[in-house]
Amino acid sequence: MPSDLKEIGIRAKKAEPELRTLKTEQKNEALMKAAEELVNQSSEILAANEQDINAARENGMKPGMIDRLRLSKERIESMAEGLRQVAALEDPIGEVIGMKRRPNGLLIGQQRVPLGVIGIIYESRPNVTADAFALCFKTGNAVILKGGSDAIRSNTAIVKILRTSLAEVNVTADAIQLIESTDRETTAAFMKMNDYVDVLIPRGGAGLIRAVVNNSTIPVIETGTGNCHIFVDESADIQMAVDIIFNAKTQRIGVCNACESLVVHDKIRERLLPALKKRLDEKQVELRGDESACSTIPGIKPAGEDDWGREYLDYILSIKTVSSLEEAIAHINRYNTGHSEAIITENYENAQRFLNEVDAAAVYVNASTRFTDGFEFGFGAEIGISTQKLHARGPMGTLALTSTKYIIYGNGQIR
Amino acid sequence: MPSDLKEIGIRAKKAEPELRTLKTEQKNEALMKAAEELVNQSSEILAANEQDINAARENGMKPGMIDRLRLSKERIESMAEGLRQVAALEDPIGEVIGMKRRPNGLLIGQQRVPLGVIGIIYESRPNVTADAFALCFKTGNAVILKGGSDAIRSNTAIVKILRTSLAEVNVTADAIQLIESTDRETTAAFMKMNDYVDVLIPRGGAGLIRAVVNNSTIPVIETGTGNCHIFVDESADIQMAVDIIFNAKTQRIGVCNACESLVVHDKIRERLLPALKKRLDEKQVELRGDESACSTIPGIKPAGEDDWGREYLDYILSIKTVSSLEEAIAHINRYNTGHSEAIITENYENAQRFLNEVDAAAVYVNASTRFTDGFEFGFGAEIGISTQKLHARGPMGTLALTSTKYIIYGNGQIR
Repeated sequence: MPSDLKEIGIRAKKAEPELRTLKTEQKNEALMKAAEELVNQSSEILAANEQDINAARENGMKPGMIDRLRLSKERIESMAEGLRQVAALEDPIGEVIGMKRRPNGLLIGQQRVPLGVIGIIYESRPNVTADAFALCFKTGNAVILKGGSDAIRSNTAIVKILRTSLAEVNVTADAIQLIESTDRETTAAFMKMNDYVDVLIPRGGAGLIRAVVNNSTIPVIETGTGNCHIFVDESADIQMAVDIIFNAKTQRIGVCNACESLVVHDKIRERLLPALKKRLDEKQVELRGDESACSTIPGIKPAGEDDWGREYLDYILSIKTVSSLEEAIAHINRYNTGHSEAIITENYENAQRFLNEVDAAAVYVNASTRFTDGFEFGFGAEIGISTQKLHARGPMGTLALTSTKYIIYGNGQIR
Repeated sequence: MPSDLKEIGIRAKKAEPELRTLKTEQKNEALMKAAEELVNQSSEILAANEQDINAARENGMKPGMIDRLRLSKERIESMAEGLRQVAALEDPIGEVIGMKRRPNGLLIGQQRVPLGVIGIIYESRPNVTADAFALCFKTGNAVILKGGSDAIRSNTAIVKILRTSLAEVNVTADAIQLIESTDRETTAAFMKMNDYVDVLIPRGGAGLIRAVVNNSTIPVIETGTGNCHIFVDESADIQMAVDIIFNAKTQRIGVCNACESLVVHDKIRERLLPALKKRLDEKQVELRGDESACSTIPGIKPAGEDDWGREYLDYILSIKTVSSLEEAIAHINRYNTGHSEAIITENYENAQRFLNEVDAAAVYVNASTRFTDGFEFGFGAEIGISTQKLHARGPMGTLALTSTKYIIYGNGQIR
């Protein structure tokens, strides 16, 4: 392990006891101070960001990516507002859950505690730096950030301001540390720092997430891709189905909770598809259908086997026809990525069966998959959307960054 | 991946939908049937076990290990009784937690669901085979077992009976599968079966657990070693301290919740240590003390730096003297393995600080660390004791083998 990386690990572990026992008011004061300083010192951040953008242009980065990298006065204000919102959230640390007395008199409960040290590996969006810090800090964790090399100057400027703000309110600056080397060796070593890091959260594209899952020896929370389906049952309200599919497919195409595939019951196909095509044409959505779908709306492309597993993140929708609810559920459970799945139906029994039998982080009846989001679920914040089943599943708010410990009050009990 | 291993993975995934939706009564009927058949066919199990034991003897296995491998009529009855107890437990699957209505009318709750496919890698105790099956099955999971080569014949016999019992009550036999190859390549490939296995739980010694953590790409629940401390505060009741330490050290020495190290406040040292030594002498416990402890009870061995981190699993206890609660907490947080830690005190403030500041799965006031156990905590069963912070921490009962999914009832909501 490179010695600077080890040093960062040691500092984080050293900060842990202080952070674990910080009072809620101290945490909120620090978050408000950090918000203020990000705005006050926005010109420093913007200058650093300008350098990142110039370098990215020289390296031939695509305009879409450059947009994700770019900061502005407004984006910095929005980062600061994010910190203020996290300050306003309830502090989950210290709560004791389910305390019960055992027959031998022991009083046993679970106290909510921080995870400890959280590692976050992310790509070129520098706003993640402040967002991730805020949630980790509010939950009493130290965070070690490893951002992309494209955003290194922006991230360094943001982290410097956050650290100074912490120190000004007498909180250890090591609550947040940034790994400044951006080479692969450092990233590889970071993923094996089990002695210093309790959990690793990758945020970014499928390639990054796969690399972290395959290489990390630290427990990982997989945030993921979404191949989300909407199944239109034979009893569906056609207008509701069209509205929901239009929303889930086109409201924002590049997000993991967008709809990528329509599954349609054979008995409603002829009523639904022409109306749906008309609506999706407003946004020039390309349709790719199976044989049955193609015969209903002539002129659309045929879908190949590889379409069923695709997360397009584009104005493209695949269409699969099925002849029963069972077939729909089997298709979805085979091709989904465990993210968000919906049924549109007026049939009570089918709604309940779909909810019970579809295996995904979020399963909807008669609503858009686009609601799978920490803010929409009422958590007030989000560190990502987990598509794994361990620890946290679905949108992750503050609770996902906590653990529990058993606390036991006795009066001399022995076995 | 060896083809037989892949075949096992495919079968487990195929069994998943059936297991996920099994009714509680079906699960309990299967468990009761399996208990009955284990007893009925105990002679087959004992014959296979005899072959394992003969082979182990020929391979020069130590008597203590042979004892762990050995089955008897009584041990098989006790395995069967374990199955019956799990049948009697509440079924956690299907429960919906915290359903709330959002301002837009969406009704959002979390439904408890199985994890899916659980892999268990364990060493030579064949009773784990039935225990692990029972808990995984009750929680609607498929389980793939990889036991030690020493117990392969016993495990094969037990799994055969369990599978037949399942089939007899019309439940898929693939709820339990045993990997019969015991070579290293198979184990290595098993730990990378992310497409088929949702979580891996190693059960065994520190070496096995470390190997799984380092090599698995599947999420692991680390069950662990315990370097458990008892801190005797200056205000402690001497008799209570002696009773608790004697119990935690000597009631069963080979277990992870046994006390390995005593931390004693300097101001109570002279009253506590001679009385404690007298009591521990009944079991010939070897004491290894720091300078201060050695000066109080002359003739004991001096402790070296490496004693503080040792899990002896033997009649040995290290003794560290401290001059404050802070020093005790810092020592414990430095050397513990995140398992079980206790304070003996009559001081309210110190009890609360110890509970808040010690970082471990279970933190006790005035009780023996030996209570860290699923049965003692009232879970009715235990799949192991987690010493990690992610997903489950401390004794793991049925809930640790479940996940949740969000279920959302809408009536046409879009964003």
